[in-house]
Amino acid sequence: MTFPKIIYLFDLVGTAAFAASGAIAGVRKKMDIYGIIFLGVVTAVGGGTLRDIIVGRIPPFIFKDYNYLIISIAVSVLTFYFHHIIERRFKFLLIMDALGLGIFTVIGTSIGLEYNIGIVGSVFLGVMTGTFGGMIRDVLQHEIPLVLQKEIYASACLVGGFFFVIAMRMGVSEGISVFVSVMIVFSIRLLAILKNWNLPRPK
Amino acid sequence: MTFPKIIYLFDLVGTAAFAASGAIAGVRKKMDIYGIIFLGVVTAVGGGTLRDIIVGRIPPFIFKDYNYLIISIAVSVLTFYFHHIIERRFKFLLIMDALGLGIFTVIGTSIGLEYNIGIVGSVFLGVMTGTFGGMIRDVLQHEIPLVLQKEIYASACLVGGFFFVIAMRMGVSEGISVFVSVMIVFSIRLLAILKNWNLPRPK
Amino acid sequence: MTFPKIIYLFDLVGTAAFAASGAIAGVRKKMDIYGIIFLGVVTAVGGGTLRDIIVGRIPPFIFKDYNYLIISIAVSVLTFYFHHIIERRFKFLLIMDALGLGIFTVIGTSIGLEYNIGIVGSVFLGVMTGTFGGMIRDVLQHEIPLVLQKEIYASACLVGGFFFVIAMRMGVSEGISVFVSVMIVFSIRLLAILKNWNLPRPK
Repeated sequence: MTFPKIIYLFDLVGTAAFAASGAIAGVRKKMDIYGIIFLGVVTAVGGGTLRDIIVGRIPPFIFKDYNYLIISIAVSVLTFYFHHIIERRFKFLLIMDALGLGIFTVIGTSIGLEYNIGIVGSVFLGVMTGTFGGMIRDVLQHEIPLVLQKEIYASACLVGGFFFVIAMRMGVSEGISVFVSVMIVFSIRLLAILKNWNLPRPK
Repeated sequence: MTFPKIIYLFDLVGTAAFAASGAIAGVRKKMDIYGIIFLGVVTAVGGGTLRDIIVGRIPPFIFKDYNYLIISIAVSVLTFYFHHIIERRFKFLLIMDALGLGIFTVIGTSIGLEYNIGIVGSVFLGVMTGTFGGMIRDVLQHEIPLVLQKEIYASACLVGGFFFVIAMRMGVSEGISVFVSVMIVFSIRLLAILKNWNLPRPK
Repeated sequence: MTFPKIIYLFDLVGTAAFAASGAIAGVRKKMDIYGIIFLGVVTAVGGGTLRDIIVGRIPPFIFKDYNYLIISIAVSVLTFYFHHIIERRFKFLLIMDALGLGIFTVIGTSIGLEYNIGIVGSVFLGVMTGTFGGMIRDVLQHEIPLVLQKEIYASACLVGGFFFVIAMRMGVSEGISVFVSVMIVFSIRLLAILKNWNLPRPK
């Protein structure tokens, strides 16, 4: 399997994990099956869709490759029927979610570089790709977005995104830059969960 | 009256009905007149505006034909002053809303076909046109969007949207495709209200 | 200092004031430092970013001139550490916020004219630039947007925006049009606070 194919595969795995987190939120809020599918889809593809709109990548990726929509819908339907089973695999889901966060961040950041919006803009685009889907999920399920309140989530994307742009600017090969950046986001996120890390809050 | 003119007329009627539903939500939440007009406008034109942004139809339709904005604002102002009367016409409003839902869905789906975003993407665009305005209304009035929770609403758009793309692909004339698709959305929505149909919810 | 430079300076001052209002909201909701910075940034640049997306001014201004992002982030970080001091300067903040509201409105309206979306559309764009950042802030902090509920806020933008387009159409010089329009928004907003003015609410 070539490197781009591996990235693509991991991207779909991340999409599935994000869709499951959205669909589970819908189940908990006792939404109907449409609401659950919608929340799954928006969590999985919302960040990337907003990213594409903001840089003028029109139509957004969801309309160019239907695999993202198909996987999001399929996972959401499965979650609707088997949410008890899926929720028991909570740890597995967290690991897949962290992997997705890493992949989404690096893809978003690399699209930013491609569209020449500068280092800060590119990292911002990476953070957006990784976190905006979950923010829309939380707004729609009537919660203050988790990412704004606690845990290490967006900040893991920030570190990984900055590492990626710096590595690319320094001429590191794309394969290595992608791999290490994804691992950085993934490891920070999982370590933060394990060690119960949080960002500082106001006094 | 030619067929496109009838569609346009029904589109404006749907816009008025959606604006009324938004403005009534604002009245119930005791917003001020600006809030009520804003909620009316965003409910009426929010879905179509997001649809236009997502396919790159810039500037969005609201800036090309002011009738949509004018009607939304006028209906919202009327609702502000005469909400007691309008709320007593609740059944009439529901019928007009169902008609608007049908028209919005078919217009959105047909724009999707025009912009070549495929069958699934086009139907998605139709659902978006029909339902996103109401979702923004509900988020702004601090409720979980109704469309995610109960009743048959987005699913009526899905059926009508799919019928429309299939009819068009099979070479059925545009007039008949539009008419039947609108009637499908309209009938499913009204039947669902009458019969108190709901989509399944998680167990 | 030339006139465009003064405008630019006031635009940055308004950005700082808006960022402070967003960051303070985050502090009150006990968000973490990322949430506080995010709320500050989105309040300060959210309206202008949506404006740019809606007229196809891609990439949005935040990616073309980093000063807006830098100032928003810096002010948010300062608010995180020194929110007690900043909140005590509440009156000063209100005045800066009113100044920002005026500048944002006029810039948004003038971009509308530049992109030929008509008088009503341009004023709408001005109101959007002035108010949508605060609306996103309120949705994210789980409140019904203040601008929809009470006080004179968006309506000050409406008056100032309409004055600006009419002055420009009548051939008044840009400098005078900008200055007077900003002063109109600024004065209405501050007078409304002083005199406790509100828009009518439904009976």
